[in-house]
Amino acid sequence: MTVRIGVIGTGMIGRDHTRRIQQVLSGARVVALSDYDPAAARAVQAGLVPEAQVFERSEDLVASDQVDAVLVCSTGATHEPYVLAAIAAGKPVFCEKPLATTAAGADRIVRAEVDFGKRLVQVGFMRRYDAGYRMLKQVVDTEIGAPLMVHAAHRNQSVPESYATPMAIHDTLIHEIDVLRWLLDDDYVSAQVVFPRRTRHSHAGLADPQLVLLETKKGVRIDVEIFVNCRYGYDIQCQIVGEEGLANLPEPMAITLRKDARLQNALLVDWKERFIDSYDVELADFIAAAARGTAVGPSSWDGYVAAITSDACVEAQESGKIVPISLPKRPALYDQG
Amino acid sequence: MTVRIGVIGTGMIGRDHTRRIQQVLSGARVVALSDYDPAAARAVQAGLVPEAQVFERSEDLVASDQVDAVLVCSTGATHEPYVLAAIAAGKPVFCEKPLATTAAGADRIVRAEVDFGKRLVQVGFMRRYDAGYRMLKQVVDTEIGAPLMVHAAHRNQSVPESYATPMAIHDTLIHEIDVLRWLLDDDYVSAQVVFPRRTRHSHAGLADPQLVLLETKKGVRIDVEIFVNCRYGYDIQCQIVGEEGLANLPEPMAITLRKDARLQNALLVDWKERFIDSYDVELADFIAAAARGTAVGPSSWDGYVAAITSDACVEAQESGKIVPISLPKRPALYDQG
Amino acid sequence: MTVRIGVIGTGMIGRDHTRRIQQVLSGARVVALSDYDPAAARAVQAGLVPEAQVFERSEDLVASDQVDAVLVCSTGATHEPYVLAAIAAGKPVFCEKPLATTAAGADRIVRAEVDFGKRLVQVGFMRRYDAGYRMLKQVVDTEIGAPLMVHAAHRNQSVPESYATPMAIHDTLIHEIDVLRWLLDDDYVSAQVVFPRRTRHSHAGLADPQLVLLETKKGVRIDVEIFVNCRYGYDIQCQIVGEEGLANLPEPMAITLRKDARLQNALLVDWKERFIDSYDVELADFIAAAARGTAVGPSSWDGYVAAITSDACVEAQESGKIVPISLPKRPALYDQG
Amino acid sequence: MTVRIGVIGTGMIGRDHTRRIQQVLSGARVVALSDYDPAAARAVQAGLVPEAQVFERSEDLVASDQVDAVLVCSTGATHEPYVLAAIAAGKPVFCEKPLATTAAGADRIVRAEVDFGKRLVQVGFMRRYDAGYRMLKQVVDTEIGAPLMVHAAHRNQSVPESYATPMAIHDTLIHEIDVLRWLLDDDYVSAQVVFPRRTRHSHAGLADPQLVLLETKKGVRIDVEIFVNCRYGYDIQCQIVGEEGLANLPEPMAITLRKDARLQNALLVDWKERFIDSYDVELADFIAAAARGTAVGPSSWDGYVAAITSDACVEAQESGKIVPISLPKRPALYDQG
Ligand SMILES: [Mg+2]
Ligand SMILES: [Mg+2]
Ligand SMILES: [Mg+2]
Ligand SMILES: [Mg+2]
Repeated sequence: MTVRIGVIGTGMIGRDHTRRIQQVLSGARVVALSDYDPAAARAVQAGLVPEAQVFERSEDLVASDQVDAVLVCSTGATHEPYVLAAIAAGKPVFCEKPLATTAAGADRIVRAEVDFGKRLVQVGFMRRYDAGYRMLKQVVDTEIGAPLMVHAAHRNQSVPESYATPMAIHDTLIHEIDVLRWLLDDDYVSAQVVFPRRTRHSHAGLADPQLVLLETKKGVRIDVEIFVNCRYGYDIQCQIVGEEGLANLPEPMAITLRKDARLQNALLVDWKERFIDSYDVELADFIAAAARGTAVGPSSWDGYVAAITSDACVEAQESGKIVPISLPKRPALYDQG
Repeated sequence: MTVRIGVIGTGMIGRDHTRRIQQVLSGARVVALSDYDPAAARAVQAGLVPEAQVFERSEDLVASDQVDAVLVCSTGATHEPYVLAAIAAGKPVFCEKPLATTAAGADRIVRAEVDFGKRLVQVGFMRRYDAGYRMLKQVVDTEIGAPLMVHAAHRNQSVPESYATPMAIHDTLIHEIDVLRWLLDDDYVSAQVVFPRRTRHSHAGLADPQLVLLETKKGVRIDVEIFVNCRYGYDIQCQIVGEEGLANLPEPMAITLRKDARLQNALLVDWKERFIDSYDVELADFIAAAARGTAVGPSSWDGYVAAITSDACVEAQESGKIVPISLPKRPALYDQG
Repeated sequence: MTVRIGVIGTGMIGRDHTRRIQQVLSGARVVALSDYDPAAARAVQAGLVPEAQVFERSEDLVASDQVDAVLVCSTGATHEPYVLAAIAAGKPVFCEKPLATTAAGADRIVRAEVDFGKRLVQVGFMRRYDAGYRMLKQVVDTEIGAPLMVHAAHRNQSVPESYATPMAIHDTLIHEIDVLRWLLDDDYVSAQVVFPRRTRHSHAGLADPQLVLLETKKGVRIDVEIFVNCRYGYDIQCQIVGEEGLANLPEPMAITLRKDARLQNALLVDWKERFIDSYDVELADFIAAAARGTAVGPSSWDGYVAAITSDACVEAQESGKIVPISLPKRPALYDQG
Repeated sequence: MTVRIGVIGTGMIGRDHTRRIQQVLSGARVVALSDYDPAAARAVQAGLVPEAQVFERSEDLVASDQVDAVLVCSTGATHEPYVLAAIAAGKPVFCEKPLATTAAGADRIVRAEVDFGKRLVQVGFMRRYDAGYRMLKQVVDTEIGAPLMVHAAHRNQSVPESYATPMAIHDTLIHEIDVLRWLLDDDYVSAQVVFPRRTRHSHAGLADPQLVLLETKKGVRIDVEIFVNCRYGYDIQCQIVGEEGLANLPEPMAITLRKDARLQNALLVDWKERFIDSYDVELADFIAAAARGTAVGPSSWDGYVAAITSDACVEAQESGKIVPISLPKRPALYDQG
């Protein structure tokens, strides 16, 4: 069976997922496109998938009987209604992060999906599909004993003036919030944010770097350095310290060069390259599950927990206090992986 | 357009390529299967592609008007006739190595393709599609100046008793013979083989390790260690020394672990894992070109040169001498890439 | 001039420094020994330096006109009086850490030395003499811009039952307290201690691991993981994140081995090996300065600051609070390096 | 006992050894100096050791009853007569390489020492004292089984016009010739030299790079790349491949820096820094043995074997042939280590 996919939102990521489905992956094809700017949708249609239908209204795309499954790649504020519409239609839906712009919105999606009684939503936390994190999870599960601490870093070469202090949580830490829960099979109970001296390469609206301290239910202590004007590259670090040993996320593959009195590897500078392969894998997972009428991978619940945790981290940024995090009981629908 | 593919030979690699085309890659589907053991073909049909037709005779598969392009995955001795049949039918054909079991056979394929006037054949030298080698080629082309030397190694954990001394060339070195020509954009002019003390882990019919010394037209000196009972893992090393610097093939990605008084990375032990991603990429390249009615990547000419070079290396094994290698003029058909 | 040295305390470290002065280093010889157990002093005399005089009372050793300079290697509680005696005698004195068991005691030494008007005391903070830390300081001073954060770890394979929670500060963190001030040319303004889940390899009296968070005057944020039952080895990590780049303390030199399906380096398990070369260098520095009648390197002031900082860290362990650290004005005597 | 040392030749290395004995090492002092240019000797006397006596004739220095042991640091052609004079006087003598400028000269020294009946000569092959090579030897002896192959490289950033093709053997490979014999506990039986394309950074009188292939009695095959205008730094590589695993000489300790889109370590560019610590260790070994009236470490025999092997390598450079190497029986005096 070939899964017929409708793509909502044809900006950079929507266009890229369309290309992926049409030209790279087996098992699906894009049959419908929509965008708040219909000309944008038509441009993607013309360039990548002439046989697709362009819908003026995304609600109609979701409802179309030509569409088996939906990709939500539109602007964040529209994610909630489109995901709810897909659930209402009983169609698998892949939603780029954030699942919703508020925890309450994410909660509404969780409730709708629980009421429907089957998983339909996959959230675009692509790091869970990265080969390095998958190798790390395998080692954490089998080699290093109970995890005790995590030392992580999320560094960008630079960010524009529009990137303000809370975005360090919502746009940057959000990835660690999800992937560390998954790596540790654990949840957060508190957050604290500490501000080092500001780099001279930051701007007025951004305290950069930041150090986020998280504590989990099982007692793991996590420190994540967020440093988005680090100058030297895009660099993701993750070290898990366990009772029996210590494991590190691999560096991206690079050529070791001896030249100019240096032993040197090029570092990535563009974040888009770092997890590019994982987009293929996450969508392949979505397609395979959608062919069975369901969804796997990062769930609505994961999106909801990420929203609650982010809110606590932003409160910790503002208050300077240790902010407790508490979650409602997880619905049984989300008990499997 | 979806390329309709016929697969000849449904052993391990034929089955795997079938799975790849059906379940992983976009743009093609398997419509026909054959094997000298028709039951084997039917087993793959049943497990992976029920809608495909099983042909008793591979010649009929090649000729079928349901088949746009052919994969030759049968035993080595049958490659030449099937590839010649595909060329006669004007169909793109992907042929696992070797292209032919003799240089004369490979030459016949080259002549047929030249007579046809368009490239139709891609040989399964998958290393050219490996991400590490591609990064290395990019660095060799831009960063290290003119190449002067190559230090390479091809090590296997162990080989069975059936692996005899000449197989170190035909089955093992063959990959370096092709990929180093491609990396250096060069050809070989002589070969010498030197035999170190034999490891106690070898057997009577195999001189292991061996050191092969190759010289190229441009004067590059290459040494390749072949050590197929090295005990510790499957390990491919390649270092290019240029006038301005030196570059190394990356190690496969691995988790660095601190445990048991060791800083340690697991090494691969199974050769099948080492280049597994490159099979996807080489077939995607084949499918894309086949959709245009042609072939790209490693050519018949590359297969022919590999055959001539292998023969010289085996002669060097036997004689202990420096054996000259000479090639006829390359047909213009193969001038691009 | 050959510096004539008296060694107080002939336990493991006193014996080792005696061997070092006699058999390794130029410029000094041991002429006097004392120990609270005179038999121990005589054993060292017999084994290493028969020509030395054994004193019953260490005060007499300090006062002897045969002695130009003093090494205090006795038990911690006795350091203060012996150092004060050496200052009173105007003799250079090398004192193993701690300089005194209380900040008040260290302060008395600082005052005595300031009153004397010339530096006479070197404290045994050997890491400042380690080749790796020296290379790191050079890079921090010239390559990475203003330091913003430090991520450090101090891990031991295991500790005995006698090692209790506060010793993580007094015996373990004490080295980072000194060496990070020196690396950063900075002082601490607050301390916080966070306790992850306890490793199952710890014992009742020890919360292990611990995470110590320090803040400096210049705004640098430091996190130091202390994990003294980490099982895998003795491991000292130090990463400095600056405005322009990031630098790491080198790993100790080790042979990279490919064996048993692992790419592996042996890790140190015995802390005594980690900084063994730096003991030679620190004593050479002491001897060279003593020949000029003075002292260089880690000073009384550094010992005093370490004592105050340690006290704050222990208070932070006990209270769970962020504990402020304030220092009196540094006497001008200590303004140079 | 303090060993009283006479230094012959007060150029760069003689001055440096004088400083080492006076200011760094325990157990010896320089009491006599000589140089073919007496003003040079007097300059070293004035700068480093005013109490030493300057001899007009080095023969008188050797004969002086104030001198217990001799360092020969003069120009190569004078080594043989001074070493023979020291043997005649029964005095331990440390001789910088080469032991003699011809194999016949080295043989005369061996015979004189054998006739004397006790080891008196240490040759300045300092790599045996390098911490990295010592760690490598320990691993080769215990971890990797029987050695089968060695892959080595000796690279310099650049050399002056005066450096001609044979110097690649006499001045460069000479270190590998000695240290590989010692690492493998083996001797050479043949040599071959292969010339890759010449780097554009070489000059008319120098074929650069070169690849030297050595074979040992035990059947080990060694390849050593010599590349003395490699541009990027001074780089010494050594990999030993054994029946059970593979070990590498460690890289010199360096700070890993993330900066300018590079993960980078500085490489050494000045060969004098690479083995600087090993000079201290080799002289400490000489002093300790000289105090007992004998010598240890690299022997006259080792110097003689290095001379014979070098001659064969130069012949291999000139002839392009595989040149056999044969040695007389080793005198029993040299049977220990
Ligand atoms: Mg995504
Ligand atoms: Mg293939
Ligand atoms: Mg000390
Ligand atoms: Mg030397």
